[in-house]
Amino acid sequence: VSTDRSTPFTQFQQEIMMSIILSRPAGKEIVFDQDGPPSPIRFFESMNAHQRSAALKAAIELELFTAIRETSGTVPEIAARINASKRGVRALCDFLVVLGFLGKYIEGAESSYSLTTESAIFLDKGSPQYVGCAAVFLGSDYLTEGFKNFSDVVRAGGPLSDQRHASQELPLWVDFARSMAPMLFPVAELTAGLIQLPPKPRVLDIAASHGLFGIMVAKRHPEATITAVDFPSVLTVARESAERFGVLDRYISLAGDALEVPLGSNFDVAIVSNLIHHWDREIIHKMLTRLHEALRPGGQVVLIEFVPNEDRVSPPIPAWFVMNMLANTPGGDNYTLAEHTDMLERAGFSSVSSHPLTPTAETAIVAMKI
Amino acid sequence: VSTDRSTPFTQFQQEIMMSIILSRPAGKEIVFDQDGPPSPIRFFESMNAHQRSAALKAAIELELFTAIRETSGTVPEIAARINASKRGVRALCDFLVVLGFLGKYIEGAESSYSLTTESAIFLDKGSPQYVGCAAVFLGSDYLTEGFKNFSDVVRAGGPLSDQRHASQELPLWVDFARSMAPMLFPVAELTAGLIQLPPKPRVLDIAASHGLFGIMVAKRHPEATITAVDFPSVLTVARESAERFGVLDRYISLAGDALEVPLGSNFDVAIVSNLIHHWDREIIHKMLTRLHEALRPGGQVVLIEFVPNEDRVSPPIPAWFVMNMLANTPGGDNYTLAEHTDMLERAGFSSVSSHPLTPTAETAIVAMKI
Repeated sequence: VSTDRSTPFTQFQQEIMMSIILSRPAGKEIVFDQDGPPSPIRFFESMNAHQRSAALKAAIELELFTAIRETSGTVPEIAARINASKRGVRALCDFLVVLGFLGKYIEGAESSYSLTTESAIFLDKGSPQYVGCAAVFLGSDYLTEGFKNFSDVVRAGGPLSDQRHASQELPLWVDFARSMAPMLFPVAELTAGLIQLPPKPRVLDIAASHGLFGIMVAKRHPEATITAVDFPSVLTVARESAERFGVLDRYISLAGDALEVPLGSNFDVAIVSNLIHHWDREIIHKMLTRLHEALRPGGQVVLIEFVPNEDRVSPPIPAWFVMNMLANTPGGDNYTLAEHTDMLERAGFSSVSSHPLTPTAETAIVAMKI
Repeated sequence: VSTDRSTPFTQFQQEIMMSIILSRPAGKEIVFDQDGPPSPIRFFESMNAHQRSAALKAAIELELFTAIRETSGTVPEIAARINASKRGVRALCDFLVVLGFLGKYIEGAESSYSLTTESAIFLDKGSPQYVGCAAVFLGSDYLTEGFKNFSDVVRAGGPLSDQRHASQELPLWVDFARSMAPMLFPVAELTAGLIQLPPKPRVLDIAASHGLFGIMVAKRHPEATITAVDFPSVLTVARESAERFGVLDRYISLAGDALEVPLGSNFDVAIVSNLIHHWDREIIHKMLTRLHEALRPGGQVVLIEFVPNEDRVSPPIPAWFVMNMLANTPGGDNYTLAEHTDMLERAGFSSVSSHPLTPTAETAIVAMKI
């Protein structure tokens, strides 16, 4: 599209902009962010963005990516393999090309689809790094329901039902443990690489879930023992993981609510992954104080979180994460490093440091009990 | 993020890629599309993309953009103006900054939000180019329902209920006419500018809806008469538009199904906007044949459509549009120019030409009856 950069606005639009500028409160800025002619296409795309989630969820459920690897990638072959209509397969595959999940090759009247490297690694069920199962949790009714009447959520300042709470033993947490494990595997590996431990370390894994954070530490430290805290139904999943990774003999289950169950004492490190964000500051203070008591002097707490910059609008994924907390928790937040530091220091911790776990979108925040 | 471009893959991932390459069918390509380390972030973002639609719909419903223009843009002021919680407003505004709909200014502990030029022009209810009302149609249950169990739609090759049809008088079409008019205004204006007409032209506007396509021609050609075809409930909206633009005295209503109602004859031009895509080739042939009969020799048919390139995966918006047709019509499609040309020629038209209506995402396809 060729655009005359010197006059991106029509006269009509210039008049609108001028009236806005003249009527704005003193000191109020307007973001002139346009390169080309203003258009409502961003609005249109965002209103339709729900179709992206629907398309990807369907592709995962139908094992479309696996079928593309296993066939020559033409519409009739894919459709036969996944037992779906040709009309549906063609539309879905074309849209997945638009979204960057597939490539398309055209030779004369024949066309075929291929996996991108990302899709081959993460979305083909035959790949050891398959994460498609995360669609079960991310696309669950529980997580998406809060976005259905979202203006009511914004008005109320939180979920409309009060059953949404990290301190309840819900089937959701078993789904999370089972389906999110592959996505969290690299996060857990990077975290284990950060933690310095003495001989025969004792590790506390709070809200252990799939168990990977504690288990990855156990893999690196053959003398470590892991105490995993979670609800009984969730600990079943963690113990399965511990067995699969050959560390079950050093794996201690502590069933209960992490805010209530006696944790024991003299731990060298306490890992708290993707939990703190569910709570308001008061509940977090209770949790951090309990961890401070459970650690030995010199012991460390490690929080794994989506931590936005202090502007709260970057980087995109940690900033975006606040939407989940608004829709699904009464008081949770994507706390910044300054907020985490403040909360940790109030609970008695010091030497707070932050470690982005790139290429994942999460950050490890480490603090010490002196 | 600093990335070692020479080794974007871990050894583990290299092994996966190698096994995929070695096991692929002959001639099958893999798209090596990575710049940095492969990551499941595209998957994660797409699974959460439904939150974009929810956030924008809520912002429109709450008149958040209007409130930001009318206040100094701080969270407490916006929250008071739209009668919503501060927690909800802060989270929603931050996310709208991430999506590019707002700017954010931070001075010490104070922060405030501002409109982007696009939001000021298109999403502030006080702007004459406000299009936010389109959220009523784009976010309607009717349009979004088909995406809820989308794998079933892909399997079946179309909507699961058979009530979804462009040939029915549905409340949806009244919603479309009322709420989509501002988004289609520039499309209608550009279309009217394309059409060459003789003195005292007779214009047929098929599925007139909001009426803008015929009305914009009437504005440019003071001697033109417009015959608007649509269901009775929808024609009420078209006549309101005709009155507002001062052309009601030259506006003839023809109530009924465009596929069945007698259309008359000797028209100079027939405009068919955003209708053809709802149908399969057989129904389109019937419609185009009827239009051929209704035009005088030398008369023109003008189709307004989302027309993807022949690859069907570009440009993004017309390519994406196929999703709506799969989810909501039994046989509709985003036909390419070659397909439109073929269908027009079969119905007796010739001299087919294509005119992208930039900066909108639609295209006018013009053909002549010899």
